[in-house]
Amino acid sequence: VNRTIDWDGDAIAIIDQTLLPGEERVLRIRDVEELAEAIRSLRVRGAPALGVAGALGVALAVRGARHVQAEADRAAALLAATRPTAINLSWGIEQARSHASKGAGAVLRAALELVEADVRTNRAMAELGAEWVAENIATPVRVLTHCNTGALACVEIGTALGVIAESHRRGLIEEVLATETRPLLQGSRLTAWELQRLGIPFRMVTDGAAPSVIARGEVSLVMVGADRIAANGDVANKIGTFPLALAAARARVPFVVVAPESTRDESTGSGAEIRIEERGEDEVLGYAGVRVAPDGAHAMNPAFDVTPADLITAIITEDRVIVPRLE
Amino acid sequence: VNRTIDWDGDAIAIIDQTLLPGEERVLRIRDVEELAEAIRSLRVRGAPALGVAGALGVALAVRGARHVQAEADRAAALLAATRPTAINLSWGIEQARSHASKGAGAVLRAALELVEADVRTNRAMAELGAEWVAENIATPVRVLTHCNTGALACVEIGTALGVIAESHRRGLIEEVLATETRPLLQGSRLTAWELQRLGIPFRMVTDGAAPSVIARGEVSLVMVGADRIAANGDVANKIGTFPLALAAARARVPFVVVAPESTRDESTGSGAEIRIEERGEDEVLGYAGVRVAPDGAHAMNPAFDVTPADLITAIITEDRVIVPRLE
Repeated sequence: VNRTIDWDGDAIAIIDQTLLPGEERVLRIRDVEELAEAIRSLRVRGAPALGVAGALGVALAVRGARHVQAEADRAAALLAATRPTAINLSWGIEQARSHASKGAGAVLRAALELVEADVRTNRAMAELGAEWVAENIATPVRVLTHCNTGALACVEIGTALGVIAESHRRGLIEEVLATETRPLLQGSRLTAWELQRLGIPFRMVTDGAAPSVIARGEVSLVMVGADRIAANGDVANKIGTFPLALAAARARVPFVVVAPESTRDESTGSGAEIRIEERGEDEVLGYAGVRVAPDGAHAMNPAFDVTPADLITAIITEDRVIVPRLE
Repeated sequence: VNRTIDWDGDAIAIIDQTLLPGEERVLRIRDVEELAEAIRSLRVRGAPALGVAGALGVALAVRGARHVQAEADRAAALLAATRPTAINLSWGIEQARSHASKGAGAVLRAALELVEADVRTNRAMAELGAEWVAENIATPVRVLTHCNTGALACVEIGTALGVIAESHRRGLIEEVLATETRPLLQGSRLTAWELQRLGIPFRMVTDGAAPSVIARGEVSLVMVGADRIAANGDVANKIGTFPLALAAARARVPFVVVAPESTRDESTGSGAEIRIEERGEDEVLGYAGVRVAPDGAHAMNPAFDVTPADLITAIITEDRVIVPRLE
């Protein structure tokens, strides 16, 4: 199995996620502009994978450069501007750039260490998360998840979906319900593809249906990832997360966020301060490339929403279980 | 402008809503089996329009029949089974069938009276609703609506969208935000088409985005229709309504239901007793013939959800404003 993103000795190799599930194609990216395009168009996406992409992008930019620091600074600025909400991107960029004064080799080594650290981090989250599930949720577990938080959102394994896969390996999971995740359908395209390969029973639901599926008692756990966690525990995540948290709170179903420590942003006090990326309206006005709305129609397209800390049962990182209400 | 559904002297004439917004084609339906197919495949949909369709369907079935009562009974059973959740369908069927003992002419007259009554009812709701908006919501009003509740859901005018159109005529509306309404995209296809023709400024949002748009303070009113209202005020409506009500309650934004008295079902105590139609999974796994999820994936596809009465600010009918919490 290919890693979602990796360094192949000469280029950044990514699985082009815009082509899944129809085609599994590996793109070899050789310059930073190409990487910026791949990030903007979501060929590579997912907060942890973006962190790795940022670091590898800086390493790519400084290879053979005469002025390593200047090239690192230029690449950092270009890449950081591609997507504003996920903090992991700028974090990964800085992890690599901070080594620029030591030369291109040091930058590459730092980026490669980040790739391996991502795998270790995800493995630790999967194990800690599966233990939390075993201790806190009655089996068999019926878990609802949103967007894609699996191996395709990281280097390997995943965040929330990594916990779900490990919980499945431990015999805890009866069924996964996965939201399709409009507008770009990461649930139907990517999560469904991963769940099939993992052999985990699942069904898709529309984003609008998920809250009432929770209300009807068909779900014993909601588990999602995060793109940025504010100091007070408010969580920015894929648009459509907030209504799941509202429904879970009303139904007294645990709502759990799984994200690495690098997703926490202590410099942002609360969700109100998080800049929400607004994407192009054509993503909303059509479906899978088919225009649906009449010509002349317009759309809002916020890519993320904020779930207030009071709706979150627990945040599981590689190190610990945080209960925002009790912090 | 064509009526959404009408009797043309020889057949039931409906606008085929599966072809909108690309094509505005009128279907002339001459037998009850054809009508049942049109209802199942949502060529005609919307609770009030289904009531009229049911009545006209019975009238169509008994034309020239030797045994009027037997034909009316057969048509009633066939049509009532097409869609279980909207009460208006069975209500309209019974309105026509109850005249079968008086002959085919009486059945047709009853059905035609229902067509005209639907227009009068909608006009009354639009006026009462616009008065409620003027009295209760600060202008300029930014209203979010779900699915399609306009002229295309009725004979003319509409329920929630009828109120919005009348409020716009009175200068109260700044902008409408309309949800796309997966899986069948009645918002992007039908509501957008109607709003354009009415000249009302609007933008589309995905179903998953709407709750956070409400939370961010971009909406001063949420207004939706209903498919069945239980005795306690719980409202079954298009899937995706419940999360809008949850978000509105948290943001203290009024959540208003607009529906004719015929949508009220005093024989159903609460939402828990309402049978929710489950539709085919292919609607969720792709759209318009474009498959998105991988082969072998499955889906849940409830067509409606239930919004509990405690989340509803007001229910506006043609006769009155009901506040479920105070009943």
